[in-house]
Amino acid sequence: MVDFNAMLAEAVDQELDNLLPAGRELEHRLFDAMRYAVLGGGKRLRPFLVIAGGEIFDMEMAQCLRTAAAVELVHAYSLVHDDLPCMDDDDLRRGRPTVHVKFDEATAVLVGDALLTLAFEILADRRTSADPEVRTNLVAGLAKAAGGHGMVGGQVLDLWAENNPLDEAGTVRMQRLKTGEMIAFAGEAGGILARARPQQRQALRMFAHDLGLAFQITDDLLDAEGSAVEVGKATGKDAAAGKATIVAKLGIEAARDRATLLSRQAAAHLDRFGDKANPLRALCEFVITRSN
Amino acid sequence: MVDFNAMLAEAVDQELDNLLPAGRELEHRLFDAMRYAVLGGGKRLRPFLVIAGGEIFDMEMAQCLRTAAAVELVHAYSLVHDDLPCMDDDDLRRGRPTVHVKFDEATAVLVGDALLTLAFEILADRRTSADPEVRTNLVAGLAKAAGGHGMVGGQVLDLWAENNPLDEAGTVRMQRLKTGEMIAFAGEAGGILARARPQQRQALRMFAHDLGLAFQITDDLLDAEGSAVEVGKATGKDAAAGKATIVAKLGIEAARDRATLLSRQAAAHLDRFGDKANPLRALCEFVITRSN
Repeated sequence: MVDFNAMLAEAVDQELDNLLPAGRELEHRLFDAMRYAVLGGGKRLRPFLVIAGGEIFDMEMAQCLRTAAAVELVHAYSLVHDDLPCMDDDDLRRGRPTVHVKFDEATAVLVGDALLTLAFEILADRRTSADPEVRTNLVAGLAKAAGGHGMVGGQVLDLWAENNPLDEAGTVRMQRLKTGEMIAFAGEAGGILARARPQQRQALRMFAHDLGLAFQITDDLLDAEGSAVEVGKATGKDAAAGKATIVAKLGIEAARDRATLLSRQAAAHLDRFGDKANPLRALCEFVITRSN
Repeated sequence: MVDFNAMLAEAVDQELDNLLPAGRELEHRLFDAMRYAVLGGGKRLRPFLVIAGGEIFDMEMAQCLRTAAAVELVHAYSLVHDDLPCMDDDDLRRGRPTVHVKFDEATAVLVGDALLTLAFEILADRRTSADPEVRTNLVAGLAKAAGGHGMVGGQVLDLWAENNPLDEAGTVRMQRLKTGEMIAFAGEAGGILARARPQQRQALRMFAHDLGLAFQITDDLLDAEGSAVEVGKATGKDAAAGKATIVAKLGIEAARDRATLLSRQAAAHLDRFGDKANPLRALCEFVITRSN
């Protein structure tokens, strides 16, 4: 299975490599672990959204890459903290030991903290945009998407749902917060960089929002159906943990239909952008056909 | 013992109360725990530095309070994560159960994450400054002070030192990172808000840096000498954990002399600011005479 854009993923990895601190000081253990957490692969969905969104407006690749890297650092931090023993207690991520297994729990907590902080440092740097208003809009957008009213709030709901089952609306809300807000921000970020019109930014958000839901459903389908070798992490865990997923609510077939519908809906939001949005259209296809 | 500025501390607490989300949603447990972590008292040293620094330049109190609150949220998050079982494993903070004891470990991890993120959201908001360049400078400054080359790096060194004793220079470096960079940023923040000249900002940084070291030493002296009732947290823990402190390196008397020297040095950096810096001068006195 070919990833949706191997060349772009390599450029993103290179940028992340440049932006992550190197380990010369005594605290190199932190930097080593940050690099381990971020540079171990991953689909780079969010960076791809940022970059393909920026390309619609002919933004400079260097600026898109920095913004994409910041978003990916936040995603990586969230995985490190989610994997902790007191959270999802996962030993395996992308086919490798998780950070707290490879290093230790204290390091994993601090790695997450440092990655989150670095993301904001990158966005606030003038190399991300010469326009301070753009930089501050990026910071505000990322903070809203990642915080208590976004990703962290969703994670709280997800943990809570283990003992307090959510209904379908609750599950949708949990996923909108836990992954949807960050993916919507990734979709919009290229438009923020480009100072695009509010309607354009909103169309990108809605595209990414629907795409993100489709992506989440196919993720859950892979968990329900796949083997650990193919998917690269432990599978069947969601059901075992009584996790609230759309697949658990609707069943496999209806969930697959829902993903297809969401993917088409996502593509429809791109109509206004013409051919420049073709990479994002291809992503809509990829999301419902992927096998890892 | 009177705190250095009870009225100001009340204004800061009021601002924090306004800025922290209220618990209407399902994820209210997160917001409740964030409020518990932040609103339980504390000396508010960093907010005081921000506000008194801003007053030198006649900055609006509302802007200073928002900036001060952001800095305090980062401080509060660092305490919540530091107290975790996998880190310092503290059950008591400011005379109350720590967040992971009162709630649970997962909530404590997420509370820290949400507080850190909220701090950046507050700074990026135009209510903090109408000038986007100022907002982005605040974000950049806070991120540098709080991240892997600042507070988090210092925390890594501090944990590492438990099994790999630091020499005096290493201890000073650890404390500069762990608390010094954030305190220097708090000192400088009023100058950033005011677009003060670089030399003025540098003088404020150096003032706060020296003050922060003095504060750290008196903190360690209180830990070495005080009782838990007076200090409001478990005492004698540093020595028991083999923590690297200046007090452990120099002994109590020499450490006290060092704090006095640093306090005087701090005050000297304020000479250029005239009477407007009197609140900061009073703080230099307070730091070496405090008993909690």
